[in-house]
Amino acid sequence: MAAIPGVMRAAVLADPGRISVRELPVPEPGPEDVLVRVHRASLCGTDLKIRSRAFFPDGGPPPGTFVPGHEYAGRVVAVGSTVDEFRIGDRVVTEAHRGCMRCANCLSGSYTACLNSGRREKGHRTQGMTVNGGFADYALNHVSTLHRLPDHLSFDAGVVLTTVGTVMHAFDVLGSLLVGARVAILGPGPIGLLATQVAKELGAELVALVGTRESRLKLGRALGAGLALNTHDDDAVALIREATAGEGADVVLECSGAAPAVDEALRMTRRGGTIVLVGFFGESVTTDLNHAVMNDITLRTVRGEGAGSLARAVSLAARGRLDTEILVTHHFPLEEVSEAFDTYAERRGDAIKVMLDITDSEI
Amino acid sequence: MAAIPGVMRAAVLADPGRISVRELPVPEPGPEDVLVRVHRASLCGTDLKIRSRAFFPDGGPPPGTFVPGHEYAGRVVAVGSTVDEFRIGDRVVTEAHRGCMRCANCLSGSYTACLNSGRREKGHRTQGMTVNGGFADYALNHVSTLHRLPDHLSFDAGVVLTTVGTVMHAFDVLGSLLVGARVAILGPGPIGLLATQVAKELGAELVALVGTRESRLKLGRALGAGLALNTHDDDAVALIREATAGEGADVVLECSGAAPAVDEALRMTRRGGTIVLVGFFGESVTTDLNHAVMNDITLRTVRGEGAGSLARAVSLAARGRLDTEILVTHHFPLEEVSEAFDTYAERRGDAIKVMLDITDSEI
Amino acid sequence: MAAIPGVMRAAVLADPGRISVRELPVPEPGPEDVLVRVHRASLCGTDLKIRSRAFFPDGGPPPGTFVPGHEYAGRVVAVGSTVDEFRIGDRVVTEAHRGCMRCANCLSGSYTACLNSGRREKGHRTQGMTVNGGFADYALNHVSTLHRLPDHLSFDAGVVLTTVGTVMHAFDVLGSLLVGARVAILGPGPIGLLATQVAKELGAELVALVGTRESRLKLGRALGAGLALNTHDDDAVALIREATAGEGADVVLECSGAAPAVDEALRMTRRGGTIVLVGFFGESVTTDLNHAVMNDITLRTVRGEGAGSLARAVSLAARGRLDTEILVTHHFPLEEVSEAFDTYAERRGDAIKVMLDITDSEI
Amino acid sequence: MAAIPGVMRAAVLADPGRISVRELPVPEPGPEDVLVRVHRASLCGTDLKIRSRAFFPDGGPPPGTFVPGHEYAGRVVAVGSTVDEFRIGDRVVTEAHRGCMRCANCLSGSYTACLNSGRREKGHRTQGMTVNGGFADYALNHVSTLHRLPDHLSFDAGVVLTTVGTVMHAFDVLGSLLVGARVAILGPGPIGLLATQVAKELGAELVALVGTRESRLKLGRALGAGLALNTHDDDAVALIREATAGEGADVVLECSGAAPAVDEALRMTRRGGTIVLVGFFGESVTTDLNHAVMNDITLRTVRGEGAGSLARAVSLAARGRLDTEILVTHHFPLEEVSEAFDTYAERRGDAIKVMLDITDSEI
Repeated sequence: MAAIPGVMRAAVLADPGRISVRELPVPEPGPEDVLVRVHRASLCGTDLKIRSRAFFPDGGPPPGTFVPGHEYAGRVVAVGSTVDEFRIGDRVVTEAHRGCMRCANCLSGSYTACLNSGRREKGHRTQGMTVNGGFADYALNHVSTLHRLPDHLSFDAGVVLTTVGTVMHAFDVLGSLLVGARVAILGPGPIGLLATQVAKELGAELVALVGTRESRLKLGRALGAGLALNTHDDDAVALIREATAGEGADVVLECSGAAPAVDEALRMTRRGGTIVLVGFFGESVTTDLNHAVMNDITLRTVRGEGAGSLARAVSLAARGRLDTEILVTHHFPLEEVSEAFDTYAERRGDAIKVMLDITDSEI
Repeated sequence: MAAIPGVMRAAVLADPGRISVRELPVPEPGPEDVLVRVHRASLCGTDLKIRSRAFFPDGGPPPGTFVPGHEYAGRVVAVGSTVDEFRIGDRVVTEAHRGCMRCANCLSGSYTACLNSGRREKGHRTQGMTVNGGFADYALNHVSTLHRLPDHLSFDAGVVLTTVGTVMHAFDVLGSLLVGARVAILGPGPIGLLATQVAKELGAELVALVGTRESRLKLGRALGAGLALNTHDDDAVALIREATAGEGADVVLECSGAAPAVDEALRMTRRGGTIVLVGFFGESVTTDLNHAVMNDITLRTVRGEGAGSLARAVSLAARGRLDTEILVTHHFPLEEVSEAFDTYAERRGDAIKVMLDITDSEI
Repeated sequence: MAAIPGVMRAAVLADPGRISVRELPVPEPGPEDVLVRVHRASLCGTDLKIRSRAFFPDGGPPPGTFVPGHEYAGRVVAVGSTVDEFRIGDRVVTEAHRGCMRCANCLSGSYTACLNSGRREKGHRTQGMTVNGGFADYALNHVSTLHRLPDHLSFDAGVVLTTVGTVMHAFDVLGSLLVGARVAILGPGPIGLLATQVAKELGAELVALVGTRESRLKLGRALGAGLALNTHDDDAVALIREATAGEGADVVLECSGAAPAVDEALRMTRRGGTIVLVGFFGESVTTDLNHAVMNDITLRTVRGEGAGSLARAVSLAARGRLDTEILVTHHFPLEEVSEAFDTYAERRGDAIKVMLDITDSEI
Repeated sequence: MAAIPGVMRAAVLADPGRISVRELPVPEPGPEDVLVRVHRASLCGTDLKIRSRAFFPDGGPPPGTFVPGHEYAGRVVAVGSTVDEFRIGDRVVTEAHRGCMRCANCLSGSYTACLNSGRREKGHRTQGMTVNGGFADYALNHVSTLHRLPDHLSFDAGVVLTTVGTVMHAFDVLGSLLVGARVAILGPGPIGLLATQVAKELGAELVALVGTRESRLKLGRALGAGLALNTHDDDAVALIREATAGEGADVVLECSGAAPAVDEALRMTRRGGTIVLVGFFGESVTTDLNHAVMNDITLRTVRGEGAGSLARAVSLAARGRLDTEILVTHHFPLEEVSEAFDTYAERRGDAIKVMLDITDSEI
């Protein structure tokens, strides 16, 4: 392992809408921290809101100071004084959330709903959102946010597992096995496509993927969707009902973030079924909530991965049962982070996951 | 016990918007049924939609044939061949739902979400909605829909317990004790006022009741609401946050059925908290569902009482811990059922629960 | 479809310890019943207790009247007046339990714990235990106990799915996904071997099978056990702890019915983990329950398949993800039912599942 | 507030079986800590095992170094740099467990089952068991282990609330409301008597307390037990079945720690019901676990208070709905800690809760 330098390259928020690369000091691990040499990092929809600063109610941090990035993988290069969970050289993937671990929510296992969210001094951190993240040579993580990446999984594959963590959490909140369930997934973005794979692997009887772009639906079919429905041509509600003896899907994952999708989700859910809202909506949603009341439909929400979900995702991938690398469509060096953002934002070349290749050095 | 006559008085749906009294044959109990001599029956918001026939997608049953009424109490006068749970003379209260008990939902305990809803031949019945109900001298109930009313509780008190069953179910779906929780209740109608009492009895730390009519809020205060907020004057979201150290309520019950209340409910819910939608909405709801996603808020729904909830309600009342009779504001004889409906619909005399006094005969 | 005859061959309990074949009338379906032409039926440990009459606290039914058998598959040949879930000719597998569907347990989804157990007149039936079962040409089932068997699954495979239903229920009561979990299974009998397959398919990180017979452990390895431990040679507790970073298994299934296994199960369970007792014990169990208290270990129990578990099992098998036929080691015609029992009881030829071939006629 | 001195009086473990008072330095709060001026502390059964050193597998800490005590209340006199949850002067009660908050169990809310139990350097602490506790003038607590004591509750009442936290957690793990449940409680010690009160307040339909000493059962009756059964005279199983229509109790709390009680608990539990093991057993338990399997009975365990349970206990007491002070039978000054232990161990004067009065100074 090479010596850790004093400074590093880091992509930082510049003026609103712009991101650039500069030098920053390499952070020093505290007692419960791990310093990660980042190998790969990928962009997520939230990063776009961070770049535009729409993510920050107060305008966000001063230009040149903040490093985004919450999906990344790399190698452990230093550990804090209390850390024996990892050793230097370990390959790791990360999750975004570390709760304060002292509020009522954190104490009861809901650390993604930490009541001290944003308060670093109380222990809360969200990588790349409330503290510096992984679009840099080095990133600092609380030990609880890291999971060991098996040797036979590439860093590219590993980075995407962070998103699988969110998917896994969406199924986890159901409180039951998924085997035998009929699952509908709205929105064939990265989350929807990964949810398709996970649902199939966990034994869903039917996975119906609903979207608007043929190329994505085709990919979804290859990844296990028994039904891939294009709302331009298909009456998704009718076809899903038809495929479920008229009952509707037991579980519906809303992964599109499109406001009209909620009403569609309600109409395709079985009486007594559950909708999990995974996508972030950019506007108010108008929907027939009375239909939910009359049909005993529950609406759950998921904000990123929760307790143990990334570990489950890594475990499933380690068994060779997920193809996450297939979603990586683009690679850019760190210096081209701005172009990487543009490519992702504008879905150039049908971009699904856009990757920053930060290093390939194994030493 | 007097002999059971062949015919009885029954309030029946006439032309849309009208209800009248006529003679109908007294029903005969099947092997799992109980025949109830109705003493008291009360009106619920759903009954208004039944009278107007808005409740029935297909226009509803032919005039003169259908008896509404799903909140009633009385005495057992005959039992089916397999019934040993009740004896003739037992005082009973009723719940509305009997599932088919053969579909996947009924088999897993969610009989209010029966997949054979409306199919009498499969065993499903909802009293006063899909089969004849209790606005009559006699009503037929499946044995599983009856609960014994303790001697020291009046029939008036008992009838209102059916509504407490719904309230109890709304708290039951939370899957945890209510003690120590901070509960907000939107809508001081019968459900909201009963929820206030139940929440207080089950040990809620704070019960905040939100409404618009001062008389109802005053009653809510008397029944245990620590905060009674009038949205004409008060910023309910701000005041509930203030009363909860800025966190918001752990549990919010939406009992108003007013579409704008959903957004208010979201804003007053703690991160990771739960909203239970109990009210029926008459229109589409426009709301910031993204706030739910970003704050790990779950939306549950309740359609009437579920498994065991009415039994819990009766048990709590039997211990003298609920005052349900206080909500009974009006009494009418069965012959004046039409005026009873008008009184309830127009909230004449600040009507809360309007009761049909069908008999007082104990023999 | 051939006409249904008036009489049929049936294996019946004779004097204690004996079973013989005689003619009985073919049963007539009631309104909610389905008449099944039995093709295959298999023996379970409970059948041995039924033959010896140890199963019946009161000595059991008079000789010559009672037909055991609760694991069977066949074709629908007649349906009751309300049945539209199945059509004549449908291939079906069965589960044992039909609850009364009117007691508090049945109403809340726990029909295997029916409070009216054994009371046929109240609606409760357990096939082959409290009512006649499937060791006969025809069997009568409540419609809710049948599941459609896909065409590409043999009747042999289908019969074993009833046992998979029990396994599925054991995982279902955990209330969470199984993916990523480390699972230990004690007892490589039919239940343990099926649990091995199911756990692996549902994404368990580790499946450790513990037993005493090398041939069974070898089979377990082939079916997916990452660890197959022989307690004659191996310290199973130590090896499972070693394979789980010292923590122990997240989930332990006790499928052996051997009293000493409970203490072993406790020692190999992670703090906060769960043991599911699936095996029936023939004697009192002496165990260090204080270890459970000090380590937050829960002991769940499972008595046969519960709500929806057989449907999940059929769904997983329909996807080609279970090999149940491999467990069928012996076949006998119905006339040799007594020899079939002896073969199973004495584990002749390392019998795992012993099958009665009742008919192969497809007409 | 008086200045904090450099040294303090502390009860420390001396040679096995002995406890004595000496001077120790007053501890200094770390960033997440609170320093508590202890006013009252009480003895628990675990303290006896700590004094005898049976509690410590390795013999325990060197004589003269370790301060027991995990039930105490007092005033905040200093706070760590990140603590704004409390202010100096606040009256507080404490819970024993602080997890590492980085292992899988702590992250999912099960911090009493911390996988790093005993490892102070990883953040885990159990007051008075793995770190110094409250039998001293001052005690150091992690901020998450403290709860504000309302002004109108005495310190005596407050100390006992720690035990109520355990009781509350025992009911919390049921995952449902307690209202309407029939609850049996074995063992009328402090836990059993407090459970009696809590069950009654939360709306249990029946609370049956089972024990052997008449004085305790009499107290139980006064605190709300509808049935108080003396196993010397009464057939508790039969009487509880009789009081529950033959079904048995829905919930049984085993609080006696007596091995034979488990079998009794099994026999008095309803099919599908739950036993919570709260007492610590001093020996192996021999019991008919097959009865649990055949009757779908779950055995849960509780090790002290879990997430939020003490907060719920304080909230209920704050509403005036618990009488905890009535259980305080004896008071000793800190210097007489050895006699306090003897009094408690030998149940002199029918000791229930024995209190150390450490200070009454309000300044």
